[in-house]
Amino acid sequence: MKQAIKFTVKDKLKNSLARTGEIKTQHGVINTPAFIVGGTKATVKALTPDQVTSLGGQSILANTYHLMLRPGADIVNEAGGLGKFMNYAGPTFTDSGGFQVFSLGVAYKKGIDKVSHSQKGESGAAKATQDQLAKITNKGVHFRSHIDGQKLIMTPESSMELQHKIGANIHMAFDECPAPLADRPYIVSSLNRTHDWAKRCLTRHQELNKEHLDKNEPLQALFGIVQGARHQDLRIQSAEYISSLGFDGIGIGGVFETGDIETEVKWVNQTVPESLPRHLLGMGAQPADLFLGVEYGIDTFDCVAPTRQARNGAIYTATGRINIRNTGFMRDFSPLDKNCECYACQGFSRAYINHLFRSDEILGAILASIHNEYFVVHMVDNIRQSIVDGTFYNLKDTTLKKYY
Amino acid sequence: MKQAIKFTVKDKLKNSLARTGEIKTQHGVINTPAFIVGGTKATVKALTPDQVTSLGGQSILANTYHLMLRPGADIVNEAGGLGKFMNYAGPTFTDSGGFQVFSLGVAYKKGIDKVSHSQKGESGAAKATQDQLAKITNKGVHFRSHIDGQKLIMTPESSMELQHKIGANIHMAFDECPAPLADRPYIVSSLNRTHDWAKRCLTRHQELNKEHLDKNEPLQALFGIVQGARHQDLRIQSAEYISSLGFDGIGIGGVFETGDIETEVKWVNQTVPESLPRHLLGMGAQPADLFLGVEYGIDTFDCVAPTRQARNGAIYTATGRINIRNTGFMRDFSPLDKNCECYACQGFSRAYINHLFRSDEILGAILASIHNEYFVVHMVDNIRQSIVDGTFYNLKDTTLKKYY
Repeated sequence: MKQAIKFTVKDKLKNSLARTGEIKTQHGVINTPAFIVGGTKATVKALTPDQVTSLGGQSILANTYHLMLRPGADIVNEAGGLGKFMNYAGPTFTDSGGFQVFSLGVAYKKGIDKVSHSQKGESGAAKATQDQLAKITNKGVHFRSHIDGQKLIMTPESSMELQHKIGANIHMAFDECPAPLADRPYIVSSLNRTHDWAKRCLTRHQELNKEHLDKNEPLQALFGIVQGARHQDLRIQSAEYISSLGFDGIGIGGVFETGDIETEVKWVNQTVPESLPRHLLGMGAQPADLFLGVEYGIDTFDCVAPTRQARNGAIYTATGRINIRNTGFMRDFSPLDKNCECYACQGFSRAYINHLFRSDEILGAILASIHNEYFVVHMVDNIRQSIVDGTFYNLKDTTLKKYY
Repeated sequence: MKQAIKFTVKDKLKNSLARTGEIKTQHGVINTPAFIVGGTKATVKALTPDQVTSLGGQSILANTYHLMLRPGADIVNEAGGLGKFMNYAGPTFTDSGGFQVFSLGVAYKKGIDKVSHSQKGESGAAKATQDQLAKITNKGVHFRSHIDGQKLIMTPESSMELQHKIGANIHMAFDECPAPLADRPYIVSSLNRTHDWAKRCLTRHQELNKEHLDKNEPLQALFGIVQGARHQDLRIQSAEYISSLGFDGIGIGGVFETGDIETEVKWVNQTVPESLPRHLLGMGAQPADLFLGVEYGIDTFDCVAPTRQARNGAIYTATGRINIRNTGFMRDFSPLDKNCECYACQGFSRAYINHLFRSDEILGAILASIHNEYFVVHMVDNIRQSIVDGTFYNLKDTTLKKYY
């Protein structure tokens, strides 16, 4: 069978897990480490696909849960797949929807919040109450749409079927992402389920890729997800098991804090084979996350925070975040960040963007989103170059020292 | 004194008031007839200035009332004027704020509505009630900010001072725009006041231009406004009087209905000298408005409807408006308008834009706005070319026949 992607490690940083590489896809090459731009609902919020490319974005990641509910995977499929649907020619990812099934499913009628980050883990299906609208069985997850409350089920098999319809270059296995503070017995049983689901995902994925091959359609790559919360032995066990199954790459889930990168991510990346690309799921808006992630072996990141924070007026600068709505910027005719070369900083002042935000003008969200995405994408680009140059630790120290 | 603008008539349509021409400004040439893109608060809603230029926009019109309230004319001035503030290199207009002072001032706490379109005209200041928060005296208009209710006054002189601070290439005299259904005595007294204000505007404008000249700053052009509602004698009287004062161009105010173009606009443009450019204020979203406006001698139009309707999902097509939110478009993979060459129609389907609108994604508003502005701008471009080619009436007939 032809390969859906081809990953090559290029430069390695001495005495470190950091490396550069490239992921070749049928829609172009991703030079790693790379920040994958968040495009949850098949759109990078407030940006055209051309703007994403212009700001340096190499690839976009969309979300299976959201696309399944709206417009529906069939419609994306009929459009020719995710890239054609959203008019983006570059490489695409989807995540499996597992995290959203738990966090948004549970949140139905209670507001969307990171419920699963804070809730104390319970031992699965048996304890599911009326309030916990996501009910987990070995078969899959029963949940309600956060849009209309409709009862749905997602299984490893159905997640694969949905993701093959959506048709990104790289997609993710369906896993359970337990709360990091859940007790160890729950994490163990959850991990066993995630491992069982990983095998089922791979089986169904391979069947679907075989169908693509028979129809002369492009193949898709599948990453397996490593879980295990904050337990070193479980993270290593998960890394070993997932690596053994034959996935095209590794996704690391359940990492929510910068402080967990030096432990959880390190344990995993010391264990998995060097030849597999490693994606850190839903994490990487802070400079420290990016430097530590790369240092401990991450090749690709995704995170929606740059555009979400941009829409709230939170602007990334080399010395930290500023809130552009503040009255102090009303007469500040300098750019958002004086050393930035993004489209927003090349022509527009803080005073103007302050005016746009205070006037609820959409262009404010557009310019802020271009700027924040550029900031993060280029920070990872600079990190990549520093590995080639051998200046990684110097760049890390000077960048992080300025930032806080 | 150097000229702020230079207007040249080029081609004329036989037995008609229609003509082509060019308005030379210090920020480039406007080929007329032209649709001036609405940029009320120093931003064309949902679009970057580059997108405005790419879609064919030749010039942008902003609003003095809105900019006076937020961010304030001083801030626009300190930024280097409207063009620099909003990072738009092309020619700019401002309107005087007169219309908004009446319509939005009156609407404070009652919702913004075209109050002045429907209210029966009363004889001015004497009848102003607590509900009518805009109070007109010969000095000017007392009104309240629609944002915070602050009591303000705008006079012909202060409007000129504000517009010189904002610094557009072309700005408008401060006039009273009475309700078209007001009784004739009110229209007469209102027109007298508008004429008195026109002289005061011109006097103050000339002083301010003299100051620009002394400081080697660019001069601004001022258009006088013709009113007179639906009364032929008053329109002609107003056109004669305003033309006699020495303005750089003519603005035609108080035209709200397509059906009034063949009368009111014709009366005015038959009267004013051919050498002055003629702007139809706040009108021109309908193809019929554009064809009739040009036929009866209009050189430039402005209207915010294309972007406002775009944000509501109302899409202009050659056969009429469609609402892109409709479920019927969920699986329609054709472009918004199959003969359109705008950015939105070159890469995105109705199904995708339907998805964006149903998901409240900003990119929906962006693509719809690009499309609608392109539609109107290019319709006027085609009308201009049809005057050169002598095919105006043919284009008018075929376009309007398809449209409804």
